[in-house]
Amino acid sequence: MTLDEIYAPVKDDLALVEKKLATIARHDIPLLGKLLEYALINGGKRIRPALALLSGKFCKYDLDVLIPMAASVELLHIGTLVHDDIIDNSPLRHGKSTVSQAWGSNSALLLGDYLFARAGRLAATTENMRIIRGFAETLMTISGGELREAGTSFDMADAKENYYKWINDKTASLFIMAAECGSALSGCPEEQIQALKEYARNFGLAFQVIDDILDFVGDSSQMGKPVGSDLNEGAITLPSIIYAEKYPDSRIIHRIIIEKDKGMVAEAVEKIRSSSVIDECRDIAQNYYNKACQSLEKLPDCEARKSLNALVTFVIKRNR
Amino acid sequence: MTLDEIYAPVKDDLALVEKKLATIARHDIPLLGKLLEYALINGGKRIRPALALLSGKFCKYDLDVLIPMAASVELLHIGTLVHDDIIDNSPLRHGKSTVSQAWGSNSALLLGDYLFARAGRLAATTENMRIIRGFAETLMTISGGELREAGTSFDMADAKENYYKWINDKTASLFIMAAECGSALSGCPEEQIQALKEYARNFGLAFQVIDDILDFVGDSSQMGKPVGSDLNEGAITLPSIIYAEKYPDSRIIHRIIIEKDKGMVAEAVEKIRSSSVIDECRDIAQNYYNKACQSLEKLPDCEARKSLNALVTFVIKRNR
Repeated sequence: MTLDEIYAPVKDDLALVEKKLATIARHDIPLLGKLLEYALINGGKRIRPALALLSGKFCKYDLDVLIPMAASVELLHIGTLVHDDIIDNSPLRHGKSTVSQAWGSNSALLLGDYLFARAGRLAATTENMRIIRGFAETLMTISGGELREAGTSFDMADAKENYYKWINDKTASLFIMAAECGSALSGCPEEQIQALKEYARNFGLAFQVIDDILDFVGDSSQMGKPVGSDLNEGAITLPSIIYAEKYPDSRIIHRIIIEKDKGMVAEAVEKIRSSSVIDECRDIAQNYYNKACQSLEKLPDCEARKSLNALVTFVIKRNR
Repeated sequence: MTLDEIYAPVKDDLALVEKKLATIARHDIPLLGKLLEYALINGGKRIRPALALLSGKFCKYDLDVLIPMAASVELLHIGTLVHDDIIDNSPLRHGKSTVSQAWGSNSALLLGDYLFARAGRLAATTENMRIIRGFAETLMTISGGELREAGTSFDMADAKENYYKWINDKTASLFIMAAECGSALSGCPEEQIQALKEYARNFGLAFQVIDDILDFVGDSSQMGKPVGSDLNEGAITLPSIIYAEKYPDSRIIHRIIIEKDKGMVAEAVEKIRSSSVIDECRDIAQNYYNKACQSLEKLPDCEARKSLNALVTFVIKRNR
């Protein structure tokens, strides 16, 4: 299924989210308006707003709260990307210059702050305390979690545990929030909300593992960023961890991460691509995929459930 | 009056705010805990929490909501300082290294994000929609407003107008929020809330003008940062604007700000110190001070009102 087909049950409403984002991008402070337009009108896949809307389809689907909340989730996501790209000093995202590259890191920092605040303001329009608290807690998890990775030892067991905590905090937490918003704002029974959150958690983890695989095996022109970016930025993700674990005598990952020998990145990428590590990582992603699908079975069968199933399938099969 | 005497009506409650901040500073992610402790336990004057608490004294003073909200206001304030110090590349604040200097700008960026989120989570505990909306809008104003200054022309009339908008957004907005929180959470009549907000706005503007004067005339050891920091960081504040306006033939401010000739900063500081510009700036601060005091007269006479009056007096007379 194509993404258009998957999004069919919420197609018109996603267009309203897009319209909302375009409205938010207009601002009477000229520089802020330019930054917002650059960051928000980005042709992104809008997976998180789609997840929020589809999660709203199991009960009383209320566009008055779902549209602002779906937009809020996307703004929060984009805010974290804008700040991540400062931290990682990333030149490209989706094939175009990052905000920090194009406008400088100071403007990017302030834009990210503004996006968090604007997202919070939208979350507040729901007047739903569970959602408002959840919004703040998600941003606490995302920003706090990024401080978890630093200062960790190079023990591979620790590295793996830290990796799973890290991707839970930085990626899955926002998927969970999207699913919770959609379902709680639609008055779903708690059991269904929990099933959707569990689906979203596994969806988010699968999404991130695939992302980290693609950083090694993807086509740089399709991904819009160079292969091996993570290692180059000093980030040790699942493929590197498993490689270092399987081949303890090869100190190549150690040299890149600990001794900061960036000259070894291309060789490490090649070694990992041609080893069985990528297959092992795919198995781990597949395991999260299976759990996500199992969670969906607790929900009533309907078009939205089919779409949620197809969405996680799409993500696990994607190549960019 | 000393600050202790001014704070007397809310002394015990400010200690509870301090305790709340200490609790927040403990975190099971080790690096985050260290950063929080460094940033929050800073011996600051806690003017904004005091303002929130004193504003709560005119009606039903409810510590259950006022303590978290006063802590929220301070966290939001500290978050903006942490991000400001990245942007300005400032080495010192209150005589100690800034977070970005001591821990690196990436950690400082994430700490600021976390503080915004943590502050939002505390604001949410009030379950008061006016306050929650106001919280998000204040952060929008502060971060968006910082993007106003960039890209402005070097026309002095524009520069002055931009300066007043800028200090309203970056400083007065948070004073206003503190006053609104305290009074609205105490169920004050709308008229009193508006009087307190107007007081806070003028208080904030006076505070910032004095701050910008002290950057020229202060004692660097007492201020905990070098004299002339603003000009050195390329920020054109009221003394520089008035100097450039009064002496259009002297192009010294132009050379520093537009031509980035940092070698001229010491001379510019000396010229401004020995001119009548500082007195003119003090008159402007005094005017805000007078307006702040006038607003207080709309409120019932009580210990808290006396303290609010003394607080703005303290701020206008401060030398660091």
